[in-house]
Amino acid sequence: MDDRVREHAELLVDWSARVEAGDDVVVDVAEDAHELAVAVAGVLGNRGATVTTLYGSDEVSRAYLRGAAGQAGDGTPAFDDDPDVDLAMFEAADVYLRLGGGRNTTATADVPAPVRRAYTKARSGVREARMNTDWMSTVHPTRSLAQQAGMAYEEYREFVYDAILRDWEALAGEMATLKELLDGGDEVRVVTERNGRPDTDVTMSIAGRTAVNSAASVAYDSHNLPSGEVFTAPHATEGEAFFDVPMTIDATRVRNVHLVFEDGEVVEFAAETGEAALASILETDPGARRLGELGIGMNRGIDRFTDSILFDEKMGDTVHLALGRAYDACLPDGESGNDSAVHVDLITDVSDRSRIEIDGEIVQRNGRFQWEDGFGG
Amino acid sequence: MDDRVREHAELLVDWSARVEAGDDVVVDVAEDAHELAVAVAGVLGNRGATVTTLYGSDEVSRAYLRGAAGQAGDGTPAFDDDPDVDLAMFEAADVYLRLGGGRNTTATADVPAPVRRAYTKARSGVREARMNTDWMSTVHPTRSLAQQAGMAYEEYREFVYDAILRDWEALAGEMATLKELLDGGDEVRVVTERNGRPDTDVTMSIAGRTAVNSAASVAYDSHNLPSGEVFTAPHATEGEAFFDVPMTIDATRVRNVHLVFEDGEVVEFAAETGEAALASILETDPGARRLGELGIGMNRGIDRFTDSILFDEKMGDTVHLALGRAYDACLPDGESGNDSAVHVDLITDVSDRSRIEIDGEIVQRNGRFQWEDGFGG
Repeated sequence: MDDRVREHAELLVDWSARVEAGDDVVVDVAEDAHELAVAVAGVLGNRGATVTTLYGSDEVSRAYLRGAAGQAGDGTPAFDDDPDVDLAMFEAADVYLRLGGGRNTTATADVPAPVRRAYTKARSGVREARMNTDWMSTVHPTRSLAQQAGMAYEEYREFVYDAILRDWEALAGEMATLKELLDGGDEVRVVTERNGRPDTDVTMSIAGRTAVNSAASVAYDSHNLPSGEVFTAPHATEGEAFFDVPMTIDATRVRNVHLVFEDGEVVEFAAETGEAALASILETDPGARRLGELGIGMNRGIDRFTDSILFDEKMGDTVHLALGRAYDACLPDGESGNDSAVHVDLITDVSDRSRIEIDGEIVQRNGRFQWEDGFGG
Repeated sequence: MDDRVREHAELLVDWSARVEAGDDVVVDVAEDAHELAVAVAGVLGNRGATVTTLYGSDEVSRAYLRGAAGQAGDGTPAFDDDPDVDLAMFEAADVYLRLGGGRNTTATADVPAPVRRAYTKARSGVREARMNTDWMSTVHPTRSLAQQAGMAYEEYREFVYDAILRDWEALAGEMATLKELLDGGDEVRVVTERNGRPDTDVTMSIAGRTAVNSAASVAYDSHNLPSGEVFTAPHATEGEAFFDVPMTIDATRVRNVHLVFEDGEVVEFAAETGEAALASILETDPGARRLGELGIGMNRGIDRFTDSILFDEKMGDTVHLALGRAYDACLPDGESGNDSAVHVDLITDVSDRSRIEIDGEIVQRNGRFQWEDGFGG
């Protein structure tokens, strides 16, 4: 076995999920994540945890959903609410580890959207029980994901392990510096100036909001490996923003999104590609026209965009703004932030001709933070 | 998808497990049983059942057990008794479907036996909860199982589907005839006369015992697909028996076993190959020297021995005697039969120069039952 698979497993169990002896751990294994599952099981055995392995196969899901749809004829199938088996399992679990890495990222493409939605809706209690565990989501590099990223397999493996096998303690320390600045500030401004493209100049209030230092560990309220971003919940957004990072929304490619905000709401929008998908997102509910998240990517192990939000939004020297739902962790106790059925991240590159300001003070310029060498330049 | 995979899935769900709308079904998928899992999920979706898929990987189990062993150093690891997650899951499940078919039948060969035993022992409550569901065990034909059988892959697929895709209703009817004869009888005698080999001439009491018509369905108290045997719990065995069907006991090949019984107990034993493994079985406990089962194979879709007990013991025109534990279903209510930690089936071919008698009446001669054409000859 590749040493990196073993290191990934140890990092996931020890740093990310903080598994202790006696913990009951559910490991959800995607079709081609077998090798990582073997490594994770070995580490869990060594740590004195118990293991239950689920088979998280998209092809099995597709068959099940289409089987149910076939039975329902023209109607939408009536799925049982929160099946006892799944509910009981997650309620008893201490930790849930999702090991992504299927064989085909479009394996469920021919499942009708209403069927998918009905299934998701019927399982909100199961999802809640799962989110109440110390859950973590990661991926094993597979050929299917390499293809999605437009990369060779070995090249993609390098990419994934560069993103995952980092000195998380050191990165958490650096992210804490940015979190402090955000927690102490009232207003964030993001500016990019590029020739021949719309500029970004957007201002958001973060008064009273708390930033999350997302250091790939449940100890930091962070549930993705890799992670490496600091995020908060902005409001009262004004100005315009241009998002140059390609992305896929609901299986539709979306390119070069331009948004104009007034009084915290999107009042104009455009996209070079996929504008209809963007329009559909914005029409979901009133909250979908407001921002739920401002995130600042700080993982410099991620050196390119791969059309996977797990990686793209954490890339060093990027900023993402999410339309829709805000995370409770960013809000004062008991207060709810922007509410919506959607949470769609849009990413912009700030590595060049760009700056991030907090209360008028520049904290990052052209991809260098104020505490880094070369910031003065 | 091969039509036979779909037929196998329908047979398993409908005939074998009798799944109904609303049932919570746990499907346990071995490493290479993906295709059957897809087919089964489709049928379950169509029937209105819920599905939870487990990943039953021997390589994951090996890694976990060796990880635990590594932690324990020279000692045996202390596994948690009946992990909550597994217990809760099986207690909530209506049906459990085990889809066998790994990548290597010896994948756990280097797990020390004490570690394996400690793990098994710690999970007796989980096993009981699983056995309290309407459980079924079947296999998807894989290259690894083909190799174990000494067959080509396509050839093995033919073999498996010939064994599984039968007219089970018709076979259940025929087996009912034999069950009636056994239920009405007091004594069974099995005789084989072969040149140059020890003969079998063994007599067992079956007075007061009930035979099970094992028709590959929970409706018949039968939990294997394929099945196709009638079995009961004999006692007071006398005589000698020779078992010419090759088999593997605890990863040791055992060939040509010869047993001599007096007063229901093995008093002499020999084996051409693997005699030590046989000796170790017989020494397990007092019950290991007595018979727990007399089974008569009636599945003529199984036309050869493949070193897999799931298939071998059901082959038409074979008889198997099991050393060790008896099944409660064969005994009067509240009475327990032979008790032992082991249950080891030994098989003899009765297709030629052989007969089975019940109370002196020949019910099968040279592989033909008394109700079949050619019996008279």
